[in-house]
Amino acid sequence: MRTFKSLFITVSLLSGLSSTFAADKLLSKVDLAAANTLRERALNDTTAGQLVESLTTEVGARPAGSTGDKAAIQWGLREMKRLGFSNVRTMEVTVPHWVRGEAECAVLAPWPVNIPTLALGGSVGTDSEGVEADAVMVKDIAALAALPAGAVKDKIVFFSNRMDRTQDGSGYGRAVAVRVQGPSAAAALGARAIVIRSVGTSPNRFPHTGSLRYLADIARIAAFAISNPDADALERQFASGKQVRMRLRSTARELPPEKSANVIGEVPGTDRANEIVILGAHLDSWDPGVGAIDDGAGVALVMGVAKLISELDTKPRRTIRVVLFANEEFGTSGSRTYTTAAQAESVRHVLGFEADFGAGPVWRLSSRVNPNQLPVVEQIFRATAPLKLARGANTATGGADLDGLARAGMAILSPDLDGTKYFDVHHTANDTLAQIDPGALQQAVAAYAVSAWLGAQYPGDWEPVTEVKPPRR
Amino acid sequence: MRTFKSLFITVSLLSGLSSTFAADKLLSKVDLAAANTLRERALNDTTAGQLVESLTTEVGARPAGSTGDKAAIQWGLREMKRLGFSNVRTMEVTVPHWVRGEAECAVLAPWPVNIPTLALGGSVGTDSEGVEADAVMVKDIAALAALPAGAVKDKIVFFSNRMDRTQDGSGYGRAVAVRVQGPSAAAALGARAIVIRSVGTSPNRFPHTGSLRYLADIARIAAFAISNPDADALERQFASGKQVRMRLRSTARELPPEKSANVIGEVPGTDRANEIVILGAHLDSWDPGVGAIDDGAGVALVMGVAKLISELDTKPRRTIRVVLFANEEFGTSGSRTYTTAAQAESVRHVLGFEADFGAGPVWRLSSRVNPNQLPVVEQIFRATAPLKLARGANTATGGADLDGLARAGMAILSPDLDGTKYFDVHHTANDTLAQIDPGALQQAVAAYAVSAWLGAQYPGDWEPVTEVKPPRR
Repeated sequence: MRTFKSLFITVSLLSGLSSTFAADKLLSKVDLAAANTLRERALNDTTAGQLVESLTTEVGARPAGSTGDKAAIQWGLREMKRLGFSNVRTMEVTVPHWVRGEAECAVLAPWPVNIPTLALGGSVGTDSEGVEADAVMVKDIAALAALPAGAVKDKIVFFSNRMDRTQDGSGYGRAVAVRVQGPSAAAALGARAIVIRSVGTSPNRFPHTGSLRYLADIARIAAFAISNPDADALERQFASGKQVRMRLRSTARELPPEKSANVIGEVPGTDRANEIVILGAHLDSWDPGVGAIDDGAGVALVMGVAKLISELDTKPRRTIRVVLFANEEFGTSGSRTYTTAAQAESVRHVLGFEADFGAGPVWRLSSRVNPNQLPVVEQIFRATAPLKLARGANTATGGADLDGLARAGMAILSPDLDGTKYFDVHHTANDTLAQIDPGALQQAVAAYAVSAWLGAQYPGDWEPVTEVKPPRR
Repeated sequence: MRTFKSLFITVSLLSGLSSTFAADKLLSKVDLAAANTLRERALNDTTAGQLVESLTTEVGARPAGSTGDKAAIQWGLREMKRLGFSNVRTMEVTVPHWVRGEAECAVLAPWPVNIPTLALGGSVGTDSEGVEADAVMVKDIAALAALPAGAVKDKIVFFSNRMDRTQDGSGYGRAVAVRVQGPSAAAALGARAIVIRSVGTSPNRFPHTGSLRYLADIARIAAFAISNPDADALERQFASGKQVRMRLRSTARELPPEKSANVIGEVPGTDRANEIVILGAHLDSWDPGVGAIDDGAGVALVMGVAKLISELDTKPRRTIRVVLFANEEFGTSGSRTYTTAAQAESVRHVLGFEADFGAGPVWRLSSRVNPNQLPVVEQIFRATAPLKLARGANTATGGADLDGLARAGMAILSPDLDGTKYFDVHHTANDTLAQIDPGALQQAVAAYAVSAWLGAQYPGDWEPVTEVKPPRR
């Protein structure tokens, strides 16, 4: 009892809040004890590891609209049923069906070389001869805009910007604009095609794909990525002062949209069953790899968490709902379909967790909750103490698939996965099971399981989040 | 003087030899001081780094018989002249001209997947439909031989043996038999094609090529390698207990032999100019990467060493000869041509250094010298003390390109390059400049430069090596 009392006092002091937080709005000893049980079980549970092994081996790559995408849906239904989830079902989603085809990138002058390349996701292809043109190197879109008029007309533009390695993924956010906006930015100035240095941190020779966004009313030009070491070598060609001439070719093409599905299963709640604690990850992947860290690991993690919670003696108060979203990578149509459907449901989504940043470990617990719920977040954080997490701010964004629900006011708890090495592998052919450390994944399952369980047991209401200020601590 | 005297005494005691090693058979103070100068200059000299950058950027891949091979010869001549070497010349070499073409490896059942693959060097191709067959997994050639009669008839054989990571490269020696002998071993039992787990240590998705050796009178079947993570996934397909069915396709083919060349340059000796200290590396590379660590680094290293020696105030007693060998990878015809020609020369090859094990650092100094020269090897070892090397045995093998000269009795000094990570990159598409640490390369240049210089200055004779016993220490 001592621990609980001192915790209550500490929380009250730390949060700077007072009597509005009575003991009955904090987590019970029983629920905290169950959290300890969950955490210890999770650290020794191989379910998530087995799931990602199964998904990557038996299904493999599963880009939106592909046969792998359809196989993944069947896999998700089968595995959710095997794990004993309730209300296992699909929700139909329409997805784009872009096909990568083959891509070639050759430097013709000054020093001929063939460079491994990938088309950016959604890129148009070229005609069969490809695009051959002199090339211009710029760092980023600002540098492109600063060029003299006509500088890239009929040229190939090479964006050489280098991504920073960060734990929280912020380096990606800063670097990705070139990929998303670069094609239309260059096309607007008359360029015929673009090549970008991969938006990734790997020193290995893996080009990094990912989606672009064409602007309306601007010519759609083909867009490619090359790996960091190849971008380094291409920079050296430019540094020679000689004219760089390149040829790019791609058979990428858009096929008619396909049907896919979100896959959903639940651990039913009890007295607050109509309140949903959603655990989201995405079932689709890019095609060059087999989608182990992106997002097989997240799929396995949320399924492993729900399975562990379902095995507790106490059933959760709120309903734990696992949603494996369709098509995160190519426009989040799975998320948008789900968010629309959620508005029509009689249940309410009160708290969300997304796992879409690799296979762990978790290094920090962040949140985006109504400030009135910060004391319980603090209590949840303390329940993760043996996992040695940092305490993050109350400014978490959740993730792409929960974005719609979060914008509608749903609270977010974010056990932050360590992104330091994530962008060495993400969106490359090297996204395989070999990149997953089973121990790190188990630690991540533990962090999510403790947080999700306690979030489901919180005796108060998860109030809507309207405005979030930086946390007091 | 104190240092020198105590060194002499130590050497005499350690070598267990006595008065036959008078002071006049040991290195002079002047030469040792020059070695210190060389070492310090080498640790700050960027010549080798610039050379490997230039070779990999301006020439890139240079497999035997290719246009890159021819460009590399011109590059070697140009750079040797630029560095001020004497007697810069080529020696014509006939080389095979195998063309890799494209390769495909697909698992059709139980779980379809396309696996990145490379043909083994020298492999025949398949017909345009490829080879489709049920597959049998074995660890290695011994396990293949232990199968019941007919077990692999008309099948595809998957060799799953995993290479050990070692500092001295011994793991490669133990694992490589599957690649060299596997194709004929499987063909002799009626197999239609083979796939091997790469003879490499990388957890990344890079298949590893390298040469095979077909036996006469046995059908030549196509042979492929897949990366370690893909081999892991393929093992899981076999572990399912279901029949694995695969399709393999390759357009590899042999073209008529081509002319290539060894590229040779010298730092002329003085009073012992007719004795050659040879520094060898190979100019050819495999084609998937750009041959940075194999063997651009070695090429750069031996050229950087000779350049530093040429810049000393004192000219070497013996002639330092740099030889960039043609075609190490595909049968060492450059080495064989050179060895034959050396027998007809009026000069004698007395001491050899080969650099063909990556970009450093050097971790050990080994040798293969007549035991009468062990005291001077010890003295050379002590001159490398600030580089913190281990003292290796007198059982070094040199390397593939110096093998013929070593068998004819030439002494070998082997500053052993650290191979711990070498086989993560070797023979893969990932063999790029990004894998080279400039500081490690400079340390390696220092180790070779000190050893080569002192080897050239040794006042005694480098006696022929006939029988080498394990060293006394």
